Amino acid sequence: MLELRGMPVTKAMTENLEVEIQKLKEEGIEPKLSIIRVGNREDDLSYERGVEKRFKSVGALVETRELPQTVSQEELEQCIEEVNKDDRVHGLLLFRPLPHHLNEERIKLLLAEEKDVDCLTTANDAHVFSGDKKGYAPCTPQAVMELLEFYNIDLTGKKVVIIGRSMVVGKPLAMLMLAQNATVTICHTKTKNLKEECKRADILIAAAGVPKLVTEEYVGEGQIIIDVGIHMVEDKLCGDVDYEAVAEKTSAITPVPGGVGCATTAVLLKHTVMSAKRKKDEEKVYI
Amino acid sequence: MLELRGMPVTKAMTENLEVEIQKLKEEGIEPKLSIIRVGNREDDLSYERGVEKRFKSVGALVETRELPQTVSQEELEQCIEEVNKDDRVHGLLLFRPLPHHLNEERIKLLLAEEKDVDCLTTANDAHVFSGDKKGYAPCTPQAVMELLEFYNIDLTGKKVVIIGRSMVVGKPLAMLMLAQNATVTICHTKTKNLKEECKRADILIAAAGVPKLVTEEYVGEGQIIIDVGIHMVEDKLCGDVDYEAVAEKTSAITPVPGGVGCATTAVLLKHTVMSAKRKKDEEKVYI
Repeated sequence: MLELRGMPVTKAMTENLEVEIQKLKEEGIEPKLSIIRVGNREDDLSYERGVEKRFKSVGALVETRELPQTVSQEELEQCIEEVNKDDRVHGLLLFRPLPHHLNEERIKLLLAEEKDVDCLTTANDAHVFSGDKKGYAPCTPQAVMELLEFYNIDLTGKKVVIIGRSMVVGKPLAMLMLAQNATVTICHTKTKNLKEECKRADILIAAAGVPKLVTEEYVGEGQIIIDVGIHMVEDKLCGDVDYEAVAEKTSAITPVPGGVGCATTAVLLKHTVMSAKRKKDEEKVYI
Repeated sequence: MLELRGMPVTKAMTENLEVEIQKLKEEGIEPKLSIIRVGNREDDLSYERGVEKRFKSVGALVETRELPQTVSQEELEQCIEEVNKDDRVHGLLLFRPLPHHLNEERIKLLLAEEKDVDCLTTANDAHVFSGDKKGYAPCTPQAVMELLEFYNIDLTGKKVVIIGRSMVVGKPLAMLMLAQNATVTICHTKTKNLKEECKRADILIAAAGVPKLVTEEYVGEGQIIIDVGIHMVEDKLCGDVDYEAVAEKTSAITPVPGGVGCATTAVLLKHTVMSAKRKKDEEKVYI
């Protein structure tokens, strides 16, 4: 059984990106991410620290704007407009969900598509759906794709079963995998015979948001399992998969922690660098 | 075996819509579709005649603008702008594919989302993907949904296998069915063991664009089969399914012709009426 650890993926991505960043700097461009955080959720703060560390380690810039939980729609929209207008900012990370009094739909239409490095906008949803490769997928499903590529797991003709149909993981991941010629089945809470569906997969993706849902009965001999879940249960982190119970049966499996989650900040960095490069290339066209 | 004919679906839809149209007319609103056709493809002309007949039969309006095959991007965009501005027009049907010299991507961003009754725009793609029910799905996959509803075929927990991953049928249909709690598998030319995948479905959707691809070996006993294909082979119309070979094995199947294809113009009418109603309701809000 091969453990599909996220750190080597992140390391390889980051090394490549460091070279790109150096080249951009030689042309006077410093890739920069803007973070807008409403309130002080501990999960957000922890991810923010991870992002800052990752970006700073390779000389990319991060600026964080913290808004109070009571921020008005108008103030938030003004912040987004500022990001849109600021030529030195190449990407925005906006933590969600937003407080209920804020209208996320309007924000989804407001942010400039080319700075939408974490697939907040309607425009990027449409790119991911159509598979035209013009936009940026959400960081978590893209991290799954990076991990599979790093470990040379080819998807062509493979039977992939995804548990979960959210717009954050399940549905966009289904589209990314379909674009790489996998045969994709999307399962969810209403699926009958979930265990049998899962057992028949070549690659099983657990993105259900339920701690240790995937037990030995869900897993076929020699499967590859990608666990996208992360939960705190009795002071210990675990995923959607009961790792101890199933690992031996698989041919490869991501641990939690230490799997997919490790690679998401590297994807955010990659998208930000891509955005800076695209902007540079567009400007060249007009010179 | 039940034959899932499209005409009764269309008839029921049209009767309901006729009542809606009468109500709108009493308020001074005449639902109106604008058709823009570039060139004179026989398929387009035939569909156009079907649309005109359907709309006129219930007192809805259709205007057609025919543009030459050589029309410039600028002229086409101007036509779209006119549709956007015209308060009496509630929907646009633009025949595709457009000639190669025209930039469809720009058109997808130009048409007003609320008049996009056949899912041309990026905005509607995103609505279908997210399943927020705010937009209009493409007419063919929506016709499949109308047909299933008419024949009381519940999708919850059903195993649906779709052959085809196009943005016209396969992918949007997958999203519509997922929103009704089906477990959806998307197959395509790179799928291994396509026959076995198909055989395991409760409901099999053939949207591959290959005449009579689905033969007896693809079909499980008692399956429901929806055939979205339409082809002219040796002067006879047929679908993606070899009807004669498989019909007896199924519990229900759509014929070609006479199945899904019959209901698409009724969907276009439904979306146009919905658009007229939404516009009226929005205007009320501001009074």
